[in-house]
Amino acid sequence: MATSAPSSSGGGPDPNSTNLRPPSSSYDWSGVAHGCTRKLGMKICGFLQKNNNLDEKSRIVTNEQPTSNERDPQFRRTETDFSNLFARDLLPAKNGEEPTMQFLLEVVDILTNYVRKTFDRTTKVLDFHHPHQLLEGMEGFNLELSDQPESLEQILVDCRDTLKYGVRTGHPRFFNQLSTGLDIIGLAGEWLTSTANTNMFTYEIAPVFVLMEQITLRKMRELVGWPVGEGDGIFSPGGAISNMYSVMVARYKHYPEIKTKGMAAAPRLVLFTSEHSHYSIKKASAALGFGTENLILLSTDERGRVIPADLEAKVIAVKQKGYVPMFVNATAGSTVYGAFDPINEIADICEKYDMWLHVDGAWGGGLLMSKKHRHKLNGIERANSVTWNPHKMMGVPLQCSAILVRERGLLQGCNSMCAGYLFQPDKQYDITYDTGDKAIQCGRHVDIFKFWLMWKAKGTEGFERHIDRCLELSEYLYNKIRTREGYQMVFEGESLRGLPDGDERRQRLHKVAPKIKSMMMESGTTMVGYQPQGNKVNFFRMVISNPAAMHSDIDFLIDEIERLGQDL
Amino acid sequence: MATSAPSSSGGGPDPNSTNLRPPSSSYDWSGVAHGCTRKLGMKICGFLQKNNNLDEKSRIVTNEQPTSNERDPQFRRTETDFSNLFARDLLPAKNGEEPTMQFLLEVVDILTNYVRKTFDRTTKVLDFHHPHQLLEGMEGFNLELSDQPESLEQILVDCRDTLKYGVRTGHPRFFNQLSTGLDIIGLAGEWLTSTANTNMFTYEIAPVFVLMEQITLRKMRELVGWPVGEGDGIFSPGGAISNMYSVMVARYKHYPEIKTKGMAAAPRLVLFTSEHSHYSIKKASAALGFGTENLILLSTDERGRVIPADLEAKVIAVKQKGYVPMFVNATAGSTVYGAFDPINEIADICEKYDMWLHVDGAWGGGLLMSKKHRHKLNGIERANSVTWNPHKMMGVPLQCSAILVRERGLLQGCNSMCAGYLFQPDKQYDITYDTGDKAIQCGRHVDIFKFWLMWKAKGTEGFERHIDRCLELSEYLYNKIRTREGYQMVFEGESLRGLPDGDERRQRLHKVAPKIKSMMMESGTTMVGYQPQGNKVNFFRMVISNPAAMHSDIDFLIDEIERLGQDL
Repeated sequence: MATSAPSSSGGGPDPNSTNLRPPSSSYDWSGVAHGCTRKLGMKICGFLQKNNNLDEKSRIVTNEQPTSNERDPQFRRTETDFSNLFARDLLPAKNGEEPTMQFLLEVVDILTNYVRKTFDRTTKVLDFHHPHQLLEGMEGFNLELSDQPESLEQILVDCRDTLKYGVRTGHPRFFNQLSTGLDIIGLAGEWLTSTANTNMFTYEIAPVFVLMEQITLRKMRELVGWPVGEGDGIFSPGGAISNMYSVMVARYKHYPEIKTKGMAAAPRLVLFTSEHSHYSIKKASAALGFGTENLILLSTDERGRVIPADLEAKVIAVKQKGYVPMFVNATAGSTVYGAFDPINEIADICEKYDMWLHVDGAWGGGLLMSKKHRHKLNGIERANSVTWNPHKMMGVPLQCSAILVRERGLLQGCNSMCAGYLFQPDKQYDITYDTGDKAIQCGRHVDIFKFWLMWKAKGTEGFERHIDRCLELSEYLYNKIRTREGYQMVFEGESLRGLPDGDERRQRLHKVAPKIKSMMMESGTTMVGYQPQGNKVNFFRMVISNPAAMHSDIDFLIDEIERLGQDL
Repeated sequence: MATSAPSSSGGGPDPNSTNLRPPSSSYDWSGVAHGCTRKLGMKICGFLQKNNNLDEKSRIVTNEQPTSNERDPQFRRTETDFSNLFARDLLPAKNGEEPTMQFLLEVVDILTNYVRKTFDRTTKVLDFHHPHQLLEGMEGFNLELSDQPESLEQILVDCRDTLKYGVRTGHPRFFNQLSTGLDIIGLAGEWLTSTANTNMFTYEIAPVFVLMEQITLRKMRELVGWPVGEGDGIFSPGGAISNMYSVMVARYKHYPEIKTKGMAAAPRLVLFTSEHSHYSIKKASAALGFGTENLILLSTDERGRVIPADLEAKVIAVKQKGYVPMFVNATAGSTVYGAFDPINEIADICEKYDMWLHVDGAWGGGLLMSKKHRHKLNGIERANSVTWNPHKMMGVPLQCSAILVRERGLLQGCNSMCAGYLFQPDKQYDITYDTGDKAIQCGRHVDIFKFWLMWKAKGTEGFERHIDRCLELSEYLYNKIRTREGYQMVFEGESLRGLPDGDERRQRLHKVAPKIKSMMMESGTTMVGYQPQGNKVNFFRMVISNPAAMHSDIDFLIDEIERLGQDL
């Protein structure tokens, strides 16, 4: 596959020719663009250009063809010698346009080749090297920084090497993380985002992105089930920060005076979360000044789901000590087991004892897109706040995480500091669109565009199909494993390979997954994570969120683990 | 400029032809790549491909030419009709390779045209519309999301529209924010980063990026002046989070028990910062449970620099009340005035009273790159922690912010929660390279690559030249303004336009900047921010960090403000 030209690529020079680049090859860069979207493209390109010209005041919305002097200049690939070119020769340098275009196109060539190979199953997932090996400089790949500039030729080599020694997280056999896959629309969205290079804090400099965020958040709240999508929210740099927001907002709702007077102004406040929940709740309890001892872990059943009676018992015990139970996190899709806590039962207890209910759906939130599977989150509409990471199960490129809050105004109240230099009250537009004062960040990266674009391109139904497919694949895996000799389901397992259960067997078993993982990384054929949990020995955690994964990749993984483990 | 073909683009079809895309035009995509880096490129491309092939075990480092079956398939532009193509037709779809490549190249065409126009002074900085106008759907640009997918043709139109209605933050006349400019190398770095789409939390899935971060942080610490670059640090999602880290780490150093027991375990702790400092210090004091009342604002001189005697007096007063002064933030480059607090004098006081010294160099940290200007940060080597945002004065694309900590182990101690599923102690590599347990985030975006690549491409001396140039330009602006009728320096101003000073004059003057700014955005010719500060009326804050800005752009801005304000 890596060496055959796709049949759809048409005629032209023989791909097997050793003449890598016929001197006569030329490329009409802007012409292609017009040609490719020829129905809408021509009108819009012409319009764009006219309208961007300061001399041209009128708005052109008619169907007219662009005339000759409105055309973009044509870029053709030239035999650029990058060894004598440097960063200082690129835009905004005088005459920098041509080298800039050639350099960017060269980078794109490297990237599109990488994309293509990512989906090619004959390509390795990774080419593993230890830190000391990379630090010593693999075959001239020198990571050190110096006073002198490198030529653009060397920069291009650095780009290739960076990809070469990295990990192909979009490879069909990469199952190692909750974020996997390489969505092409999302990728295009990220490329555009970095080209626009702006900041979400004000409508002033991110008008389109701010509105996209608002529309998308409302849509997500509708899916959560809040009436007409009411409420508030913001995209944050990852689920841990989103979860931190939930604790901050809950605290502000219950004890707004903490903002000015500190934790000393409140009684001892207690938070609750599952023993299987993500560690970010613990990080938040430490960072925000509650202390990890005031985060109480809830017991779970054999599938890793919180036992509601345990929550109520612990709430009562806390109250008897004179402390205040304030916040409960229910996990929708736990990090290791993928367990869904019973939200409705937990919500009943939260209402009874006046506690904030947060649902951490960083991983499982995507199921809200699926009519078939969203029942796993029944009761989520009763939550006061929800974390939902489209960069996990929905395959949006990292980072893309939302914190949704049911009550409007709390995010603003909690975080607002009214910086005069950014959020001037006397602006000419409606400043309620400025988002910066809701955030704990000042500058905020544009995480919305790639997600918005993917939603446009797939529709809600496209996300639904992806989610349903992931769950179908995991059922396939489950059925394969449970009937296969040599594997043991974490939930149901009994004795393995005839060894009597006991400490010695457990100690030996505990070492199996790390050894297999180590060999797996050396061979680079696939990647899957392992960990112990509670009293269980190290086991593999299969994550299925990769849109590229097929049944055959699941089969491959099972066989590969067995192959690698056969001599242990 | 927008309509002329650059002379270096060579021969070929007449750019003025109305035949936008000759049907015969074709493009050898991979061939071009080989041609462009023909010295190193051929060897490396061949090598990459061999090495990525699982069947090929041996490492190829010789000078051999790639043979025919090692070649990448050739991509040639075809007359792709995107109106019948959808996201589901792209990779990983069967036969998705060709449409994927065509789609990505089409997106790149949109982006490179945008880049080109960004640097073109005849292009507007923005085409302003109010929120309600964009929400109503400008000329078919529909922001709403739906259940059904859009065709790729429409997706491409959406991409064009998104850029059209946005703000060109890289335009030579964009002076509105501390982050300005569009660095081409940084842009290429971001494109690669999003293609690699990985996560900084473990070496396992980001080996190269983790090492780049380590090397770059050490280099930054060397520039701060810590012996042999010792210490610790991490890249965070912006300066506000970096500043938050500094407070967290300081608290952990002084009262490690707060991590487990909460703020109740410590006496009342007090933080100090300039009245001119960035509002993120205040946000941190609220979020982390100190309370904003326990953040004491320090008085400044007429240039906005902290008065050390005021700090000492306030520390003594706090101690007399029985509270504990714990943390001082000194600002190196304040947000509005660009003031540098006297770090050495502040450090003396911090040492005397055993307080943590943080330097917020989010804006001014870049001056450490300049032999000529780094004296403004004298004493920074005595800081316990430093915030430094390369995405500000150094022109790295957003987001790129580092928190540097002098003492090793504190970040880890403060934030570590030892999640077993990520940071397994029984991995096959040296797990001290895993960075995730230092962070308050779990997943962490790769912010390092674009910065590392820019450093490679410019060298330290390239950054130095950029910084020196920015300061030279601001001196130019200063001299222009102070001698020009109708302008008044914030620092030195006396009566303006003959009006006697007084409330009425102040009220009228206060409205001038917002009005001019409003007209400026409507006309779209340039952008600069305004704000009041203390008892001063609204004034313009000129930020010079844009590598594209020239003397003539400064002149343009001054003239433009005058032109827009002439009828007020």
